[in-house]
Amino acid sequence: MSARVLIVDDLFPNVKLLETKLALEYFDTVAAMNGPDAIAICEKGLCDIVLLDVMMPGMDGFEVCRILKNNPLTAHLPVVMVTALDQPSDRLKGLDAGADDFLTKPIDDTALFSRVRSLVRLKAVTDELRSRALASREFGMGDPLALATAETGLNASLLLVEDRRGSAERMAAALGQYHTVTVEADPQAAIHVAAEGNFDLVLVSLDLEGFDGLRLCSQLRSLERTRQVPLIMVAEAHDRARIVRGLDFGVHDYLLRPVDRNELVARVRTQIRRKRFSEVLRSAVQASMEMAVTDGLTGLHNRRYLDNHLAGLFADPRLRERPVAGLILDIDHFKAINDTYGHEAGDEVLRTFADRVRLHTRTIDIVARYGGEEVVILLPDAGLAEAYAIAERIRERIEGTPFQVHRDTRSVAVTVSIGVANRRPEDVGPGEMLKRADLALYRAKASGRNRVEAQAA
Amino acid sequence: MSARVLIVDDLFPNVKLLETKLALEYFDTVAAMNGPDAIAICEKGLCDIVLLDVMMPGMDGFEVCRILKNNPLTAHLPVVMVTALDQPSDRLKGLDAGADDFLTKPIDDTALFSRVRSLVRLKAVTDELRSRALASREFGMGDPLALATAETGLNASLLLVEDRRGSAERMAAALGQYHTVTVEADPQAAIHVAAEGNFDLVLVSLDLEGFDGLRLCSQLRSLERTRQVPLIMVAEAHDRARIVRGLDFGVHDYLLRPVDRNELVARVRTQIRRKRFSEVLRSAVQASMEMAVTDGLTGLHNRRYLDNHLAGLFADPRLRERPVAGLILDIDHFKAINDTYGHEAGDEVLRTFADRVRLHTRTIDIVARYGGEEVVILLPDAGLAEAYAIAERIRERIEGTPFQVHRDTRSVAVTVSIGVANRRPEDVGPGEMLKRADLALYRAKASGRNRVEAQAA
Repeated sequence: MSARVLIVDDLFPNVKLLETKLALEYFDTVAAMNGPDAIAICEKGLCDIVLLDVMMPGMDGFEVCRILKNNPLTAHLPVVMVTALDQPSDRLKGLDAGADDFLTKPIDDTALFSRVRSLVRLKAVTDELRSRALASREFGMGDPLALATAETGLNASLLLVEDRRGSAERMAAALGQYHTVTVEADPQAAIHVAAEGNFDLVLVSLDLEGFDGLRLCSQLRSLERTRQVPLIMVAEAHDRARIVRGLDFGVHDYLLRPVDRNELVARVRTQIRRKRFSEVLRSAVQASMEMAVTDGLTGLHNRRYLDNHLAGLFADPRLRERPVAGLILDIDHFKAINDTYGHEAGDEVLRTFADRVRLHTRTIDIVARYGGEEVVILLPDAGLAEAYAIAERIRERIEGTPFQVHRDTRSVAVTVSIGVANRRPEDVGPGEMLKRADLALYRAKASGRNRVEAQAA
Repeated sequence: MSARVLIVDDLFPNVKLLETKLALEYFDTVAAMNGPDAIAICEKGLCDIVLLDVMMPGMDGFEVCRILKNNPLTAHLPVVMVTALDQPSDRLKGLDAGADDFLTKPIDDTALFSRVRSLVRLKAVTDELRSRALASREFGMGDPLALATAETGLNASLLLVEDRRGSAERMAAALGQYHTVTVEADPQAAIHVAAEGNFDLVLVSLDLEGFDGLRLCSQLRSLERTRQVPLIMVAEAHDRARIVRGLDFGVHDYLLRPVDRNELVARVRTQIRRKRFSEVLRSAVQASMEMAVTDGLTGLHNRRYLDNHLAGLFADPRLRERPVAGLILDIDHFKAINDTYGHEAGDEVLRTFADRVRLHTRTIDIVARYGGEEVVILLPDAGLAEAYAIAERIRERIEGTPFQVHRDTRSVAVTVSIGVANRRPEDVGPGEMLKRADLALYRAKASGRNRVEAQAA
């Protein structure tokens, strides 16, 4: 995937060197000579990845990284720290600041390109999700990005695939302080454990006895149930070729042996945060789509959902053949409840009403708020008699127990009238059945309310 | 990106050969020995890409491809046809069936891997979008996948970057039958033309005089405004290294010189369909999120949106300092309109009412249906006097022209009462301002309706 790489370095020759290398590999580049400029470029969305020098006058690389990773606008950008020193303490400081990886000067080209490519590819996959989530924010649906950025990356469930007992114990102990760790020594079993276990991350040793750990990684990346799970390879430094291969097909990160426990903890945490970042965005988009078909007050489906669903019952030839019944429920004297007890009490009654109706319908039934105090229920595969019985049961349960209002300090007797109808072979659209149910409802109201009436034969 | 590759071939040795090659590159494989089995595997979502033999007894590869590409469940899967012959007529038949590419037996490994990788990466980017769109279908929001699959791929706007006049003319003539084609000979200018022109696809010659066409491709893939646009490279057969490079960083397809006009037309069409497929899914997700904050009857914002927006006006410290006014509008005697003319007429009145209100507010104002016949308007940066004037103007426009109902066959005189309030420094939340507006509305109703009243000083 091509991408725009932001190079941040206070020394012009360093910028030039990286620009040249990246341009030869067909990356687009943009440069910043200090931290504030770099942050401004990132906030404007003008780059896909940041190569960030650590040693800069004024704001150093660690601080720039921390700011980028704590800003909802920029937290999704991969940051690779570029450092002259390769002290474990430096790496740790960077990882704590949220950096995705490190490159040591002089920069090794293979490491540079494989890392940039892998990070850019992973980003491309979540970019679409992020723009949908951004749109949901514009529609006034809260700020999922801020929520996603605040994720700590702790208390995850990890799978460690490692058959060297000593190494497994050391890693499990280090990670066990913050997460729940499952160790699996058998790679064949690991694929099943991973598929069933709902893990947040899997660590895979590339030095398994008689089994290529990279193959396990590729299987985990391919299977539907595990492809979203972040993977970290654990490998010997001389195994660079396989590491590059793994990054190339989508493994997220790697650790070199002997594994530094602080680095292990930090890299795992970075991957967990990244995964949860996506999950928060995904749920935000999902939630906002669900809202489109949900009634805000009662949590029932709304009329839009009902109309779509009804249309489907008549459009789909297979569904057309099957019976379906419809109920229209209307709370008796609802206006009087509002006038006597106030609008809030009216809302409480509607919510309780919805809860009781839901309790006495099946999960396959569609229950939707149709308007003010009207609820429609669709009963797939139900005949008229069955529908009438369900309606009568609901009517009894509404009448049977008074409704609590004013935060349970008062109670109100509520009753409901219900009209029942079912689909007839000659019906050409959903309107007819509901019209018959509405006529039945009218008769129920006219004959004294608190009644169920079915359509005329 | 690792992936699960479906190999479809009726000859076992062919399946084995491909399995071995792909496994060495860490791809996961699954096999089918005939068309129906292959289709079943695809429908179950058990693969990411299909390598499809052309010559099979029973259902041949062309037919399998056509079925996959016309089924909303499988249309997104990339299909690579594998053929023993390399006749232009065969290629064309495959492209017409919707195939994404061809490989000729004996299969060249570089071509195989670069194509599979590139197609799988492109797919990974849209998978997230597809699952959100699938979810919207489950919520009863219509079927965006069916809509997306029906896209024809014609009437697009294309940019051709080519400085060989003869070649440009021939390609433009072939494509001009189905699309609008813009030719640009200067690669430097092309980047600006592409960024400004809102093209559906860009074709780039890799043989430009004194300029590396691949660099232009990489820039187009990096820039925000062009990164979603499909790219096709036009190259000499001996330029395979650069072709592979281009596919690797995200160019979608390529054509070899001399360009076969039928293949040109077919490949362009495939890319246009792919792009529009994504666009349809994207709009479906977007639309379903917009619905979550839109009132279905009037198209105004709904109460959920209003509540979120109001909360933001009080939560954001910068917005808290600025004036804001609120209007509550309530149609007079709305119940009588419903009782006299019927519910449908009531709905017509609400829609017309909403249209007129929208006409007399600014785009920065928030207009939301608050409940039955109540509308709330928020006026950012407006003081009480200004808000009162706007309310009075709306009241006049409602009273001034009768409302048409029953499909313009009858007209009804409608009036509105409006309560006006503005934010006070001592307000701690949005509720207080609306409460004052509601009290003012109550006074407007009590003093005879068809009036505007402002909050008491």
